[in-house]
Amino acid sequence: MSESSERTLVDLLIEPRWVLPIEPDDTVLEGHAVVVDGQRIVAVLPVAEARQRFQPRETVSLPEHVLMPGLVNAHTHNPMTLLRGVADDLPLMTWLKDHIWPIEGKVMGPEFIRDGVELAVAEMLRGGTTCANENYFFPDTIGATYRRLGFRAVVGLPVIEFPTPWANTRDEYFERALETHDGLRDAPLQTTAFVPHAPYTVSDDSFERIRVLSDQLDIPVHLHTHETQKEVDDGVAESGLRPFQRLQKLGLVNDRLIAVHMVAVNQAEIDACAEAGVSVVHCPESNLKLASGFCPAEAFRKAGVNLAIGTDGCSSNNDLDMFGEMRTAAQLAKAVAGDAAAFSAAFALRAATLNGARAIGLGDEVGSIVAGKQADLTAVRMDQLESLPLYDVRSQLVYATGRHQVSDVWIAGQRKLTDRALVDIDEGELADRTRAWGQRIGAI
Amino acid sequence: MSESSERTLVDLLIEPRWVLPIEPDDTVLEGHAVVVDGQRIVAVLPVAEARQRFQPRETVSLPEHVLMPGLVNAHTHNPMTLLRGVADDLPLMTWLKDHIWPIEGKVMGPEFIRDGVELAVAEMLRGGTTCANENYFFPDTIGATYRRLGFRAVVGLPVIEFPTPWANTRDEYFERALETHDGLRDAPLQTTAFVPHAPYTVSDDSFERIRVLSDQLDIPVHLHTHETQKEVDDGVAESGLRPFQRLQKLGLVNDRLIAVHMVAVNQAEIDACAEAGVSVVHCPESNLKLASGFCPAEAFRKAGVNLAIGTDGCSSNNDLDMFGEMRTAAQLAKAVAGDAAAFSAAFALRAATLNGARAIGLGDEVGSIVAGKQADLTAVRMDQLESLPLYDVRSQLVYATGRHQVSDVWIAGQRKLTDRALVDIDEGELADRTRAWGQRIGAI
Repeated sequence: MSESSERTLVDLLIEPRWVLPIEPDDTVLEGHAVVVDGQRIVAVLPVAEARQRFQPRETVSLPEHVLMPGLVNAHTHNPMTLLRGVADDLPLMTWLKDHIWPIEGKVMGPEFIRDGVELAVAEMLRGGTTCANENYFFPDTIGATYRRLGFRAVVGLPVIEFPTPWANTRDEYFERALETHDGLRDAPLQTTAFVPHAPYTVSDDSFERIRVLSDQLDIPVHLHTHETQKEVDDGVAESGLRPFQRLQKLGLVNDRLIAVHMVAVNQAEIDACAEAGVSVVHCPESNLKLASGFCPAEAFRKAGVNLAIGTDGCSSNNDLDMFGEMRTAAQLAKAVAGDAAAFSAAFALRAATLNGARAIGLGDEVGSIVAGKQADLTAVRMDQLESLPLYDVRSQLVYATGRHQVSDVWIAGQRKLTDRALVDIDEGELADRTRAWGQRIGAI
Repeated sequence: MSESSERTLVDLLIEPRWVLPIEPDDTVLEGHAVVVDGQRIVAVLPVAEARQRFQPRETVSLPEHVLMPGLVNAHTHNPMTLLRGVADDLPLMTWLKDHIWPIEGKVMGPEFIRDGVELAVAEMLRGGTTCANENYFFPDTIGATYRRLGFRAVVGLPVIEFPTPWANTRDEYFERALETHDGLRDAPLQTTAFVPHAPYTVSDDSFERIRVLSDQLDIPVHLHTHETQKEVDDGVAESGLRPFQRLQKLGLVNDRLIAVHMVAVNQAEIDACAEAGVSVVHCPESNLKLASGFCPAEAFRKAGVNLAIGTDGCSSNNDLDMFGEMRTAAQLAKAVAGDAAAFSAAFALRAATLNGARAIGLGDEVGSIVAGKQADLTAVRMDQLESLPLYDVRSQLVYATGRHQVSDVWIAGQRKLTDRALVDIDEGELADRTRAWGQRIGAI
C-alpha cells in the first residue's frame, strides 16, 4: 500500500465494531471505519487505512456498536403522536368517529402539528430513525418543523374531497399543496409527495390532477391502498373496479406510487406492482392492531417489489419504533407465507432502510452506507446481556434488539443523538409541553 | 378514621404513582401504596393511610412508575438463551436437525444449563419477569440454579421416548424426575411439573404414568400441544386420533394440563379446554417466527379458557421479553379474530400475570397485587418521551412500553433489581461467561 504523505482533512471518522452497509448486500464489515465530510460519506474502509489517509476533526469510537444506515419510516402521521393510546381496543369506525375525529376537530391546528412533530422527531431519533414519510394536514407547519429540527422528511401534500381545517375546496387543497412545495424548495432535508388520502376519499378528477402535477414536480404519490377487504369490496360495489384497477386506469400505477398497506391484494396486483416499479409500504403492527388483515409481504418480496416498512400513526401502533416494526414484519411474514425461511432478517433491515429510501425517491441519497451518499447513520450498542451471545449481527438487530440500544444518530453528517441524548431538543421542556397536551386532550 | 397510636412494623412500603393490581379487574389505583412484610403483601391502600398504620424499615418512592405484578413467562426453555440467534430464517427441520440438535449434542450438560439459566434470569429480571415455567433437560441443575438465584420457577421434569444426555430409558426419565422433585421439596420458590415433550415423542404408557404421578405429586403437566397442523395430521395418520383427542382418552385433559401453543385447534377443542379447566399458553412470536400458524387466542379468551403468555425459547423468538410478547399477542389476536376490539390491553396484562400464575398452580400465591399474596412485583417508569402523553396506563404498558423501562423488581419480597441494576448477579462477569459460550458454540 503506498503511503500518502498528507492526510485528507475531513469532519468525522467513525470507528464502530461492525458496519452494516446494506449495500453491498449480504455484508457485515468488521474492523472498518466510516469517513464523513460535510453531509456525505466519503469512504468505508479498513480502520488502519482510514487513519492513514484521513485527518478527522472528530473521531467517534463505538467499540461495541454496529453502525447502520438510519431507519426510514416509510409511512406515518407524526402529529398524531400526541394521540398515542387515546382510545384503544375499539372497533375501527367507533375509534375514528367517536374519538379520533372529534379530538382532531378540537385540537388540529399549527400548534398541535408543531408539537406533535417535535415529539415524534424526539422519539424517532432515540429509536434510530432518520427519515419519515409524513402524511397529515398543515404540511406547511409540518415542513417548517422538520426543517427547524433538521430531520429528514417527505412532507405529504394532502388531497381529500371534503373540507378540513387545512382547506375547504378541491382547488384550495391543490393551491396550498403547490405553495407548500414551493416553500420547501430550498430545504436540504425536506421533500414533498402528494397524499391523496385514500381511493374512497378522492375523486377521479383529483387523481388526474395529482398524476399530472406529480410528474411536473417530479414527486411521489403516497396513498393508502387496499388496506382492508372492505375497502376493496366497497370500491367494486361503487364503480365495478377494485381500487387498484381504478388507479391503473387513472395511470397512477407507476414508479411514483407509494402504495401503503396493500393487505387485500391478489397475485396479479402484486405482479403489476413489480412490473410498474410501485413501492409498497408494509405496516404490520397497524394492520394487526386495527384488524385490517395480513399483507402478503413475502409474496411482494418474492415478486421483486420494492417493499418498505412503516409504523403508521401512533394511535394505531402505538409507537414509532422501527426496530419493533422490523421484527414484527419479519416474524409475521413467515407465518403468513407458511415458511420459516421467508423474509429474512437481512431483508427486514434492507426494507427498513434502502427500500424506504427508494420508495420516497431518495435511493441514491440515503438508505445505505456507501461513499457518495448522505451520512444518515445510526449506531446501536450490542454489548448488553440481552444482545449476548451474538452469533449474527443482522439476526440480532431484528430478532433481539430494542430501540433503546440506539446510542448515536447522524442526519446528513450532523449529530442528532449523542450517547442517547438529543442534541437539538430539550427533553424536559418537550415532556412538559407534551403533558400539557395530554391534559387538554384527556379532558375532551 | 380512627388513629392507631402505634404503627405496625413492616419491611417495605412502596409508593408508586399507579398500582395495577390485576385483581380486582379493570382497576388502576392512583395515590395508593403497597405494604410488604417478609415474603408477602400485607396491604394495598391509600398512601396517607399506609403511612399512618405502618412503620416500614424501607420506603421506596416510585413517583413516575406503575407498580404491577411480576410477569409470568408461562413457557420457555431458558438454557437455550445461550443459543439466541444461532441459526435464523431457516425451515424448521433444517434448523433443528442441522443446527440446534448438533449444537446441543456437543454442549448440553450442567455447565451449559447453569450458565444459560443465569443469563435468562438476568434478562428476565431486567424485563420485569419474576416467574418462568421452564422446560429443558438436567432439571436438577436447572432447579439448583434458580434456587441459588432466588428466582421463581416451575422446573419441568422431562419425559421423552429416546435417550438424551439426561437419561437413557423411560424408567430413568421417571426416576430422575422423582429425584428432582424430591430435591426441590423445601425450595420456597421452585415447584415442578411433568414435561412430556410432545404428543409425537411420548408413548401412551408414559402419558399414563405421568397422569398417575402428577395426581400423586399434585403437579401440572406441561405439554407442547397442536403446535402445527402437521403435528395434528401426523397424529391422525398414525393413530386415527388428533393428539388432543388422544390426550382426552388418556385422561390428561383436565385442570393440571398446561397446553402450549394450541395453534391448530377447532372450536370443540377450545370448548373442551374451557370445560376441563385446561390452561393454554400462547406463544405468538414463536408461532410466527417458526411459521407454525395462528393460535385463535381471542376464541380461547371468549370461551373462558385460562390463557397465559410465553416467549418460548430464545432460539425461536429471540428474546425473553414479556412486554414485547404481550404486545404481539394483543395486536395479533385482533387480526386473527378480525376484530379491533378483541384481546384488549387489560386482558393481555392479565394473561401475562395472573393467568400465568393460575396455569402453573400458583394463582393463590402470585399474579396479582392483593393482600396475602407473595410480593412478586415489577415497577415500570412511565415518564420518558416514548410514554407521553399518557391517557391510559394499561394501554400504554401493552402498546407503547419497552422492557428497558422496568426499573425495580421484587420476588417474594426480596429486591432483585434496583433502578435497573441486578442485585444478585455480577453483570460483567456473566457477560464474559456468556461471550465465552458464544465463542465455543460459534466454532461448532
